[in-house]
Amino acid sequence: MQSLRVALGERTYPIHVGAGILGDSALFAPYLHGRRAAIVTNAVVAPLYLQRLRTTLAACGASAIEITLEDGEQAKRWDTLDAITRAMLEAGCDRRSVVIALGGGVVGDLAGFAAAIYQRGIAYIQVPTTLLAQVDSSVGGKTGINHALGKNMIGAFHQPLAVIADVGTLRSLPARELRAGLAEVIKHALVLDATFFDWIEAHLEGLLGGDAQALTHAVLRSCELKAQVVAADEREAGLRAILNFGHTFGHAIEAGVGYGNWLHGEAVAAGMVMATELSARTGVLKAPAVARVRALLVRAGLPIEGPVLSPERYLGLMRVDKKAAAGRIRFVILEAIGRAALRDDLDPAAVRAVIADCSRVSAAAQ
Amino acid sequence: MQSLRVALGERTYPIHVGAGILGDSALFAPYLHGRRAAIVTNAVVAPLYLQRLRTTLAACGASAIEITLEDGEQAKRWDTLDAITRAMLEAGCDRRSVVIALGGGVVGDLAGFAAAIYQRGIAYIQVPTTLLAQVDSSVGGKTGINHALGKNMIGAFHQPLAVIADVGTLRSLPARELRAGLAEVIKHALVLDATFFDWIEAHLEGLLGGDAQALTHAVLRSCELKAQVVAADEREAGLRAILNFGHTFGHAIEAGVGYGNWLHGEAVAAGMVMATELSARTGVLKAPAVARVRALLVRAGLPIEGPVLSPERYLGLMRVDKKAAAGRIRFVILEAIGRAALRDDLDPAAVRAVIADCSRVSAAAQ
Repeated sequence: MQSLRVALGERTYPIHVGAGILGDSALFAPYLHGRRAAIVTNAVVAPLYLQRLRTTLAACGASAIEITLEDGEQAKRWDTLDAITRAMLEAGCDRRSVVIALGGGVVGDLAGFAAAIYQRGIAYIQVPTTLLAQVDSSVGGKTGINHALGKNMIGAFHQPLAVIADVGTLRSLPARELRAGLAEVIKHALVLDATFFDWIEAHLEGLLGGDAQALTHAVLRSCELKAQVVAADEREAGLRAILNFGHTFGHAIEAGVGYGNWLHGEAVAAGMVMATELSARTGVLKAPAVARVRALLVRAGLPIEGPVLSPERYLGLMRVDKKAAAGRIRFVILEAIGRAALRDDLDPAAVRAVIADCSRVSAAAQ
Repeated sequence: MQSLRVALGERTYPIHVGAGILGDSALFAPYLHGRRAAIVTNAVVAPLYLQRLRTTLAACGASAIEITLEDGEQAKRWDTLDAITRAMLEAGCDRRSVVIALGGGVVGDLAGFAAAIYQRGIAYIQVPTTLLAQVDSSVGGKTGINHALGKNMIGAFHQPLAVIADVGTLRSLPARELRAGLAEVIKHALVLDATFFDWIEAHLEGLLGGDAQALTHAVLRSCELKAQVVAADEREAGLRAILNFGHTFGHAIEAGVGYGNWLHGEAVAAGMVMATELSARTGVLKAPAVARVRALLVRAGLPIEGPVLSPERYLGLMRVDKKAAAGRIRFVILEAIGRAALRDDLDPAAVRAVIADCSRVSAAAQ
C-alpha cells in the first residue's frame, strides 16, 4: 500500500492506494470510532464488494446501514438524494455519522453530495471501485447531480475524510471502463507531467492487463498530480481549470448524445484529441506531440473522434458548460506534452474547424 | 444606516441596517459589477418590493432575472430548488452570477441553498424583509430545505456576500409576524446580553409600533450578538448551539402541529418558556428571572404555552432534531438572564414535567 496526503489545511485528507486494502479494518477504524456509518453503493457493486466492506466495518465495531442505488449516470438526480437522505433520517443518522461511498464516480458524486447537504454537511469516506473514480473523483471534493438542463450543474465542493482505493477491485471492472479511466490518467500526464506520459506509454499493456503494481503507480501518480493543482486552487477559481483539458469538448459530446451513451472517459478522450488539435492549430503544440497523443489513445482503445453533431450544436452545448465565464468559452490547450494553458481568446473559426475535423463517429457507434 | 461586519476570515461580510436602504444603489453596486443577478422572491413580497429592487439594480447597471416562488414554509422542498436552478440555467447564469434573496426566512433559506449548490456554489446577497429574517438568518449562513422526515434536515452553511436589511420593509409585515420576529430578538438577549434584555423591556412598545430607530437598534444588536457566536463557531460544533435556546422544544412544536400552523417565532417563544422552566427546575435559574421572561413574552403577544401533545411525542420529535448528538438530547438552559449553558445530562423526568406543565394550548388555537 502507498499513501499520499491532499494538503487542504483543515480539510487535509489521506489517499491510500493498494491491492486488497478494502479488507484492512485498521485503515477504516480511525474514522469510525463511535460513529454511525451509512454505506452508499449501487446494484452492480453491492454483490461484488459490499460483504467485504461489511466484514471490515464489523471488525472495527462500527454499525452501518446500507443504501443501494440503481446503477448509472441517470441516478444523479434529485430523487436519489431524497432517497439517500430519507434512509439516513429513518436510521437516525446524526451530524457525527459518516457516509461511505462504495462504487464508481456516480456513487461517489451522489454519496458525497448527500453528505455535503445532510444536516448541512457531515463527513464521508470514498472507497472508489473504478479506475475513473480512483484517479479522478478521489481528489478535488467535487460532488453533485445532473440537472435536466446540464451535467453536474448542482453540487458542492465537499472534501472526504479519506480515500481508500483498492486496485484489486479493478479486476472486476469491464475492459471498456478500465480504458475510460485511463483517459483521465493520460489527461493528468498531458497537462502536468511529461515523464509520467512516457511511463504510461511504456506500461500501457500492464495497465490494460490489470497489473496491480502498474495500476497502483498510475493511481497514485494521478492523484498526486491532481492534488498539487487542487491544493493550489480548491474552489476552481483559476489554475484548477487546467484539469478540464478535453472536458469542454467532452461534456458537449456527452450532452449531445445523451448521458450514458458514451462513457465519460470516452468523451474526454475524443475531447482531448479536439483540444490537442486546437492547440496545434493555434500554433503552440508541435505535430509530433499531436501524433503521440493520438497514438496512445488508439493503443488504449479509446475513441479519437466525436459524434457527428454540427459545430454550432457543439458550441451551444459548450456555452452552457459551467466553466464558461460570463458567456465566453474558455479552453485548456497544450503548450507541450506535460504543460497546459488556459485560453479564452481563441478564434471561433479554429474551434469550428477542429470540431468538423474530429467529429465523424455516428452517435450510435459506441 | 448602521453597519457591522461578521468576521469569518475570507468569508467575512457586512450587514447594513437602516430605513429605506433597499433604494440605495450605491450599497448594491460593489457586489454586482459585471455580474448577472438572479432575484429570488415570493408571491407576497414581489408586489411590495420587487419593483423597488429592480429600479435599484437598474441604477447599478446590473441585469437581473426574477424568480417568484410560492409563499410559505412548504416551499422549502426539492422541487422548488429544481425550479430555481432551472430558471438560472435557462437564463445562462454562470459561476460569477449572484443570487439575491428578497423576502423572509423561507426565501433566504431557499435562495441561499440554491446559491450554495448551483454549479457547486455561487455568491448571494440577503435582502431580508421580515424581522425574523433580519435578526436570525442574516447571520450564520444557514440555508436549506425541509425533508418530509424533518425540518431543515437538508442544507448547507453558505455565507452571503452581504446582508442589506431595510427596516422600512417591516411596516408591511403583519403584526403577528413582527411579534414572531421579536421572539428571536428576545432569545439573543436572553442567552447573551442582560443589558439588551433591559433595553427590550423598555422599548417594546416602540418595536411593536414599527419605530424605525428602535427597530434598527434591535436588528443591529441582535446581529452583533449572533455574529460574535457564529464567528467563534461557524459550523455549529459547540458554542453556537446556545443560539438554539428554545429551539429544541420549538422544533418539536412545529413538527408536532405540522409546519406552518405555528410561526417559527411563536414556537420558539413557547419553547423558550419550556427551556426557562427547565432551567429553574434544574436549580440554576431563579424564579424572578422566570417571571421576567414570561412577562416580556406576554407583553410581546407571544404564546407561552405549547400545543397539547404527550411528553413522549415531544421527546420523540426532539430526538430526530439534528442537534441531538448520538441519540441524546442536548438542551440549552439559562443560568441567568443573559447567560446560557449547554446540558445533555438533564433528568428526563424534569423534561417531561416541564412539557406537561407548559403544553396546554389546543393545537388548533393559533
